[in-house]
Amino acid sequence: MNASLLKRLPLMLLIAVSLLAAFGGSALAAGDPTGEILMAAAEDPASEALTFVWLTIAAVLVFFMQAGFGLVESGFAQAKNTVNIWSKNYMDLCIGGLAYFFFGYGVMYGTDIGGFIGSDGFLLLGDYYDVAHARDWFFQMVFAATAATIVSGAMSERTRITAYMAYSFILSGIVYPLSGHWVWGGGWLANMGFHDFAGSGVVHMMGGFVGLVGAKMVGPRIGKFNEDGTPNHMPPHNATYIVLGGLILFLGWFGFNAGSTLSGTDLRLSMIAVNTMLAALAGTTVYVYIVLIRTGKISLTGAVNGSLAGLVAITAPCAVVAPWAALVIGGLAAVVLMFSERFVEYVLKVDDPVGAVSVHGTVGLFGVLMVGVFADGSYGGVSGLIAGNAAQFVTQLIGGIVLLVWALVGGGIMFALIKVGMGLRASDEEQIAGLDEHEHGMAAYQLT
Amino acid sequence: MNASLLKRLPLMLLIAVSLLAAFGGSALAAGDPTGEILMAAAEDPASEALTFVWLTIAAVLVFFMQAGFGLVESGFAQAKNTVNIWSKNYMDLCIGGLAYFFFGYGVMYGTDIGGFIGSDGFLLLGDYYDVAHARDWFFQMVFAATAATIVSGAMSERTRITAYMAYSFILSGIVYPLSGHWVWGGGWLANMGFHDFAGSGVVHMMGGFVGLVGAKMVGPRIGKFNEDGTPNHMPPHNATYIVLGGLILFLGWFGFNAGSTLSGTDLRLSMIAVNTMLAALAGTTVYVYIVLIRTGKISLTGAVNGSLAGLVAITAPCAVVAPWAALVIGGLAAVVLMFSERFVEYVLKVDDPVGAVSVHGTVGLFGVLMVGVFADGSYGGVSGLIAGNAAQFVTQLIGGIVLLVWALVGGGIMFALIKVGMGLRASDEEQIAGLDEHEHGMAAYQLT
Amino acid sequence: MNASLLKRLPLMLLIAVSLLAAFGGSALAAGDPTGEILMAAAEDPASEALTFVWLTIAAVLVFFMQAGFGLVESGFAQAKNTVNIWSKNYMDLCIGGLAYFFFGYGVMYGTDIGGFIGSDGFLLLGDYYDVAHARDWFFQMVFAATAATIVSGAMSERTRITAYMAYSFILSGIVYPLSGHWVWGGGWLANMGFHDFAGSGVVHMMGGFVGLVGAKMVGPRIGKFNEDGTPNHMPPHNATYIVLGGLILFLGWFGFNAGSTLSGTDLRLSMIAVNTMLAALAGTTVYVYIVLIRTGKISLTGAVNGSLAGLVAITAPCAVVAPWAALVIGGLAAVVLMFSERFVEYVLKVDDPVGAVSVHGTVGLFGVLMVGVFADGSYGGVSGLIAGNAAQFVTQLIGGIVLLVWALVGGGIMFALIKVGMGLRASDEEQIAGLDEHEHGMAAYQLT
Repeated sequence: MNASLLKRLPLMLLIAVSLLAAFGGSALAAGDPTGEILMAAAEDPASEALTFVWLTIAAVLVFFMQAGFGLVESGFAQAKNTVNIWSKNYMDLCIGGLAYFFFGYGVMYGTDIGGFIGSDGFLLLGDYYDVAHARDWFFQMVFAATAATIVSGAMSERTRITAYMAYSFILSGIVYPLSGHWVWGGGWLANMGFHDFAGSGVVHMMGGFVGLVGAKMVGPRIGKFNEDGTPNHMPPHNATYIVLGGLILFLGWFGFNAGSTLSGTDLRLSMIAVNTMLAALAGTTVYVYIVLIRTGKISLTGAVNGSLAGLVAITAPCAVVAPWAALVIGGLAAVVLMFSERFVEYVLKVDDPVGAVSVHGTVGLFGVLMVGVFADGSYGGVSGLIAGNAAQFVTQLIGGIVLLVWALVGGGIMFALIKVGMGLRASDEEQIAGLDEHEHGMAAYQLT
Repeated sequence: MNASLLKRLPLMLLIAVSLLAAFGGSALAAGDPTGEILMAAAEDPASEALTFVWLTIAAVLVFFMQAGFGLVESGFAQAKNTVNIWSKNYMDLCIGGLAYFFFGYGVMYGTDIGGFIGSDGFLLLGDYYDVAHARDWFFQMVFAATAATIVSGAMSERTRITAYMAYSFILSGIVYPLSGHWVWGGGWLANMGFHDFAGSGVVHMMGGFVGLVGAKMVGPRIGKFNEDGTPNHMPPHNATYIVLGGLILFLGWFGFNAGSTLSGTDLRLSMIAVNTMLAALAGTTVYVYIVLIRTGKISLTGAVNGSLAGLVAITAPCAVVAPWAALVIGGLAAVVLMFSERFVEYVLKVDDPVGAVSVHGTVGLFGVLMVGVFADGSYGGVSGLIAGNAAQFVTQLIGGIVLLVWALVGGGIMFALIKVGMGLRASDEEQIAGLDEHEHGMAAYQLT
Repeated sequence: MNASLLKRLPLMLLIAVSLLAAFGGSALAAGDPTGEILMAAAEDPASEALTFVWLTIAAVLVFFMQAGFGLVESGFAQAKNTVNIWSKNYMDLCIGGLAYFFFGYGVMYGTDIGGFIGSDGFLLLGDYYDVAHARDWFFQMVFAATAATIVSGAMSERTRITAYMAYSFILSGIVYPLSGHWVWGGGWLANMGFHDFAGSGVVHMMGGFVGLVGAKMVGPRIGKFNEDGTPNHMPPHNATYIVLGGLILFLGWFGFNAGSTLSGTDLRLSMIAVNTMLAALAGTTVYVYIVLIRTGKISLTGAVNGSLAGLVAITAPCAVVAPWAALVIGGLAAVVLMFSERFVEYVLKVDDPVGAVSVHGTVGLFGVLMVGVFADGSYGGVSGLIAGNAAQFVTQLIGGIVLLVWALVGGGIMFALIKVGMGLRASDEEQIAGLDEHEHGMAAYQLT
């Protein structure tokens, strides 16, 4: 794929859509496009409708996390890369969303082939022109967009934006949906009993570890590491953006987790909301106190990342644990985060400007495992060590490793192709001048 | 209306309210103020209540678009006019909202007279002190506020704020509700079969084209046009505000469109959400790629305005088209936007700092017409060319022209009155110093 | 409590949670943790579920007010204290939330003892591991967090953050929940007939007047008052943050007030939304016009604080008055605010950087009283003077005074303990350099 081909992509896609719809004989074909069939068959129509309303609102909250990711990432970055960071975040939503419409949703939720891949539902044509599918597509698309945008943070301030746009299309079109199918689309991990309620693994590990591969392959920002390999601190350019973004993510997470009941009449949603809150509160508090004891300072970025760690960790087990356990999981997540951050920076020597690899990747894996520890058997038939069942922990471990390997391998192939085909890294001159000037021809701020 | 009369307005209104309520004999009169009657009569009370919950939440999302408009507009402007822009946006919400309470809602949804105007429901007194009317008022008021605030962007950085406050009252009290009555209040355009589901015409065209009149009458900002008539680029002062604002608008749009089912049990709401998303994704992608091909740069402001074009265009047809068609409509909207932007700037020589005329006006008209093209007959009995029906397109064309003419004429009379009575334009000295200093006595930023 | 003990707090709490849960015999005990029992017993399961969905969404909106408070407060402050302000706001959410989980909810809503205090439900263990309790905890916790964060504004720019963190724990663990129990937990004020629908008194007066005590005890910022006692104006550092924050608070308030129906099938929620909107619109308009008449300028900060006054005032009476009355209450609230601001600054000589004492405290008391004036008897059996009942006004007056006294006394004891134990006030050197540098080792902005 070269750059000029890439540039023609949207035109080609628009033409393809029109042709498919017009001559594929399915432009006017439909499943249940108004919900009449569904409502007529429903035992209780109000309950049916409540699920539509609940999932739509939850999806809207998840959608808003895009603003949160953009704020956190741009806040952590240098001012001269602000326009670039927002452009990446905006375009991964748009291009990734289209890829999910064209390919991703079908791969993830289409009719299963061998536990490995879905095979229909592309463009919501034919039978998929249906209100229940539309409801599910909308909810799942914003999850795909979340996975995609996590990667942006790990690679920020030195990645070429056209390369990033190609990445967005591939990740949302195939890499993410494929493993998503294994867990949520009735694939082989689901059949094995692997439990990941809202996606510590499916969404966050995928984003975090694909980000690790990407950050490694694109290399560190100029000035991040000294010649002796020691890292330098590169200060955030706007603390307000970081914390406002963190609060927007926190907000969206209630839709993310509680919406994953996929039903408006599953009252467990209230417990999920409580667990989500408590894990975040504990994550922040533990992280901030450890930093306070060590340095005597209150770290605002630590508070935000501590929350996010708690939130990522509780995402898999949010439905199957009790509130006290959510608190413990969130608190431990902060400790895991802290160790992972040092490991990524000092051992792997990877430059991850926002800590995405640790917050989403490592802590995501931790969250997946916690299902096997704290699930108390009260919901969904999932029991962990605390309820005397060791088998679930083993299953979670296997599932976690599979997702980790796929993120590294799938992400590696993807970025290798893009690196060879288009080039990943902005030149030194561009980085020094700031990506805003070179790639966008626009400065973020004109304060005078 | 002169300035000192204007200043006494709120006091007069408070007195009027108290008098009306106390001596009009209706202070304690009511329709169904708790919903007991409604619930007792309902076939399924849970469905009834779901509609209240759904519309209230949708309205809250639409309300939040006020923050989006303010951010986009102030981000595009120069720093020295920031306080002014936010003040206008905040005051058009407040003054316009009160006007809608006093007059607008009654004009738009009161008992119809001759298909032309509504005639009761003012101040929600008497029979309108009723939970169903309250639900509808809340949802409709935030739509009125949206229409009002669109105009602000087209006139920003050189309009006197007291003139703008007078405008807000007149637009929300009579200009917007009158044409709104024709389409949504059971008026003559509705009777003709004109279909505008969520308001590409009623809301966006109205805001955009009233903005065109206003921008023309107030004249361009100092420095916008050279003596030979060629325009200068005036760079935005904060890119983060533009994109954050764009995402908040995007967020609110799900309430705007899906909430326009006016029912929590109309499952088509999921299809509307999908269509809304896809049109925005396509609008962004097409706009950004065209700019990329032309200039080699990724335009962040283009991404945001491309999304908004997709969203405005899908607002009328969101309920009556399939997802693939939403994608095509959104993509085409970006092209329409691009031509309109050049037309407004180079041919009409109107200074529209945020592109509101094109994004909301021209693209709004395009959206109205697309109902007549892509409506597939699956919902609401609306069919367009694609389903073999040409009559709807003609109806849409007529309705679109009517709304265009009314926006220009109604808006023209309004601004002419204000211009004569109070003066519209800030002086050159005020513009050069910045409106913040002169009209507000406050600088937006104190960074040292 | 000394600083090193405080630092060990989270570790101790994590251990305590684990021990309690593991050895208290209740780790696996539960009430109705999936809602099966509730749904089986429900007359209409869809209505039951609707309440869960509605309260969860409303709570999420209230949660987001945290971002609003942080933005307003940091916008009003000097740039050099931005990180500090956000840290306080973030930590009062987290530490206060944990305190509410450990103690507060049980004190407020646990089994009543003598009308004075609740006595169980701590950590949601045992019977409280239950979906209905989880739903209520989530909704009430975000209210507690609101009360806590109001105080931050009154004390900003000169309070030590560790002292503030201790405050957060005590306020949310005992001071707020205790009086909350009296009004909302079936305590003695509730039994007296005191009506405070969504918390003008319980939440806002508490926050505002505890803030008054705190601001008095910590003393004014350096430079606020001259030697002759006259105050200086200290300009806000970012107007956009103030107004964006104000709009987010406005947004959240719809969840705050309409959610306080505590039921998704109480259709009065639409009237509450309308009343909330109208009070805010009137508050802004009246405040802005008074300033306009006096100074010839449009005050943006006045617009925001005018809205907030309207919102605080309508919070108690929002369910029991008609829309026209909400308008009058909101308009009057702006006048009350204006007098209170002068009183606090010129008579009490208290430095309240954001006006929290007046907006939340004084206007909260005004709102409590307005129940006794404008309640029209249409809902909940509450009638005020307008419906010919004077007794309610007397009850409201008594309740208001009780809450005022408790805020001053409870708050006074709390801050006295903290002042003696840890010290409240940052040193002059720290204030001059900015709290960001000393307490956080981080500057908020790096624009070059």
